[in-house]
Amino acid sequence: MPDLFCLSASEAAQRIAAGTLTARALVEACLERIALRESDVGAWAHLDPDQALAEARARDQSPVRGPLHGVPIGVKDIMDTADMPTGYGSRAYHGHRPAADAACVALARAAGAVILGKTVTTEFAALSPGKTRNPHHRDHTPGGSSSGSAAGVADFMMPLAFGTQTAGSILRPASFCGVVGMKPSFGLVATCGTKPLAPSLDTIGGVARSVADIGLLLAALTDRPELQPAAPAQLPRIGVYHPQPCDQAQPATLAALAAAREALARAGAVLGNRAAFPAFDGLVVAQQAIMNYEAARNLSWERLNRANEIMPRTAAMLADGMAVTPAGYDAAQREAAAARAQLGAFFGEFDAMLVPAAPGEAPPIATTGDPFFNRPWTLLRLPCIALPGHRGPSGLPVGVQLVGRSGEDARLLAIALFAEAALGAER
Amino acid sequence: MPDLFCLSASEAAQRIAAGTLTARALVEACLERIALRESDVGAWAHLDPDQALAEARARDQSPVRGPLHGVPIGVKDIMDTADMPTGYGSRAYHGHRPAADAACVALARAAGAVILGKTVTTEFAALSPGKTRNPHHRDHTPGGSSSGSAAGVADFMMPLAFGTQTAGSILRPASFCGVVGMKPSFGLVATCGTKPLAPSLDTIGGVARSVADIGLLLAALTDRPELQPAAPAQLPRIGVYHPQPCDQAQPATLAALAAAREALARAGAVLGNRAAFPAFDGLVVAQQAIMNYEAARNLSWERLNRANEIMPRTAAMLADGMAVTPAGYDAAQREAAAARAQLGAFFGEFDAMLVPAAPGEAPPIATTGDPFFNRPWTLLRLPCIALPGHRGPSGLPVGVQLVGRSGEDARLLAIALFAEAALGAER
Repeated sequence: MPDLFCLSASEAAQRIAAGTLTARALVEACLERIALRESDVGAWAHLDPDQALAEARARDQSPVRGPLHGVPIGVKDIMDTADMPTGYGSRAYHGHRPAADAACVALARAAGAVILGKTVTTEFAALSPGKTRNPHHRDHTPGGSSSGSAAGVADFMMPLAFGTQTAGSILRPASFCGVVGMKPSFGLVATCGTKPLAPSLDTIGGVARSVADIGLLLAALTDRPELQPAAPAQLPRIGVYHPQPCDQAQPATLAALAAAREALARAGAVLGNRAAFPAFDGLVVAQQAIMNYEAARNLSWERLNRANEIMPRTAAMLADGMAVTPAGYDAAQREAAAARAQLGAFFGEFDAMLVPAAPGEAPPIATTGDPFFNRPWTLLRLPCIALPGHRGPSGLPVGVQLVGRSGEDARLLAIALFAEAALGAER
Repeated sequence: MPDLFCLSASEAAQRIAAGTLTARALVEACLERIALRESDVGAWAHLDPDQALAEARARDQSPVRGPLHGVPIGVKDIMDTADMPTGYGSRAYHGHRPAADAACVALARAAGAVILGKTVTTEFAALSPGKTRNPHHRDHTPGGSSSGSAAGVADFMMPLAFGTQTAGSILRPASFCGVVGMKPSFGLVATCGTKPLAPSLDTIGGVARSVADIGLLLAALTDRPELQPAAPAQLPRIGVYHPQPCDQAQPATLAALAAAREALARAGAVLGNRAAFPAFDGLVVAQQAIMNYEAARNLSWERLNRANEIMPRTAAMLADGMAVTPAGYDAAQREAAAARAQLGAFFGEFDAMLVPAAPGEAPPIATTGDPFFNRPWTLLRLPCIALPGHRGPSGLPVGVQLVGRSGEDARLLAIALFAEAALGAER
């Protein structure tokens, strides 16, 4: 029998609901794993074992609240928690204690989840790294901004965690840490109480070790049972898209894509090529302009009143954003809208696109890596999921990304379930 | 010479910058007006005269910061202020003190504004009235949710105030109180730190006694100098649109529209009829579904943890929102997207549409009135401005609404400046 901390969220929820496992035992197992590994990984911005155990005991003493009953979950520290400090990854908010839980936290608790603690985020979910290390190699980044969530789930500290993505903050760390990470369609999960970075892009999602667990989380948060994926009714039609011209994809990523393509073909998926999305590189630039512009305005209080406490990389991003003119911002938004209008033609007969999740293996710890391959899809507001299965030349994970049609999160999850089985068989 | 509290924001800013008026004298005049009238009007959720005077004195002792230097401004109490309590109009947040200013407040301060205090909002900017009365007749509503902002500006307590609109929360109170109120295009002003109600609709705007003052505020907040309106280069082309079939518009509103149409024609505007926007009534229903659905999810913490402190009307709205299914929400969003795609054809040769701002005069105090005539335009994310000038049978103000093309806020403001002069000439 495997260690309890290795349980998937779905398995744990089933056993807790059936009375064959207590939330307390599961949380204890996760806390023991954390005690063993946290000094190496640094996934947590706040962790109070007694508080987590008390919440677990309370679940054990109450009727089953919902599909996440008793499941420990990590909450990215840009999400407000009324009973835990919430620092947004910034010295400017050291010890900050919000008045309320973020909506997604309140919904997770209502579904029975045990909030294990707050996971490390880059400052304001931008690009300044926190303390987290890649659990596969401590000299490499776990990716960002959902650093602690991806590293903690990868390291078996908890089965499930919240992430957010504005550029590539879920898919990139999931790829670097070798876990499943999903950014759903823009707007799927309520954002109230999650610190805004760029509100026209910010999207809440999750990190887990299986596609089913991502579905469990999203279905519970949204009352959309169809997000709990079943195998697709038909063999999926998947377009393999590699942006051209592009020298961003390293050999490890090209190999991961080729391996995934082969595995999917062997499993019976209908595959085809998609040579180019119009103006992929232009969308990268447009996403960056929009994100920096909105961040600089939305973080006005911090920029104007807490300049001394903001990290240099964040300050540089805000300065970049202030240098984007309103006319430049408007043009970038028009470009995004025009690209969204072309998505039907781009997808054509395909249900999803197989694309790079990240440029390659996790780079050294000094940065959180480049969200190049995530920016356009986030800008287009499409659902995206990263799947693990491949390893690069240094033995570090390299994920692949499946991108679905707008609003078709359930279909993307079903295809991801199919792909997960196909890729897993190759591992 | 008129009393100082009657000054427009533009005039005040000019005189303060020129050294012929101090911020302190202006704030003192506003505070005297408030002391005289607040017991009748009830515009303020928080007002600390000493604090406001200290901020005014600080402005007088510093170089001119920006275009709002020394101008007192009312801040709707769903916007966070680090140095003033922020109650979101709810007992659930009584005495709440945020860690930071909302982005719009920080930007206003950076432009030199003096934050006079926090104006009354309905609970969470929804439909449960606060204490504010219509300054023209205390048995009537000032409208909501930007109740204190509209009533306070109308009553000469301050020249300028922030509002927000999710359904009709700026245009309706502006119409009822006889002031100018603008909801810009969705996304124009940064929303971070403003309590979300329905994030796909929530828009920050302003209330003033002149179109120029609205332009002053929006230009200062957004670094878009073109929002400071000049007379339009060409005579504006305005479509007069009265939704059909519709029994929502009372005779007072029909009379206000007819009078505005005549005044605009006399001033030389090119006018034409627009008989029907496709599915106006359907968009009213879709807006309501989207707003209630998003509010119920975004206010999850309050709904699940503070049910006893939430007002019955708010609770009913959240219950309505929980009864909207995800499929119903998705369908409403698709309907909105389809309507947005038809806007080019709807506007045709016209630069703006002249439409009702509210059903009629302000109704009795028990409600904040019906946002029927605002919901579709908010859903379509268009810039809208309410202009005063007409009086109903009870002597209460009845505004009209001009709706501009998406993103063309500067052009709408220029047309509104033209219309303000035309309507003012009729007064």
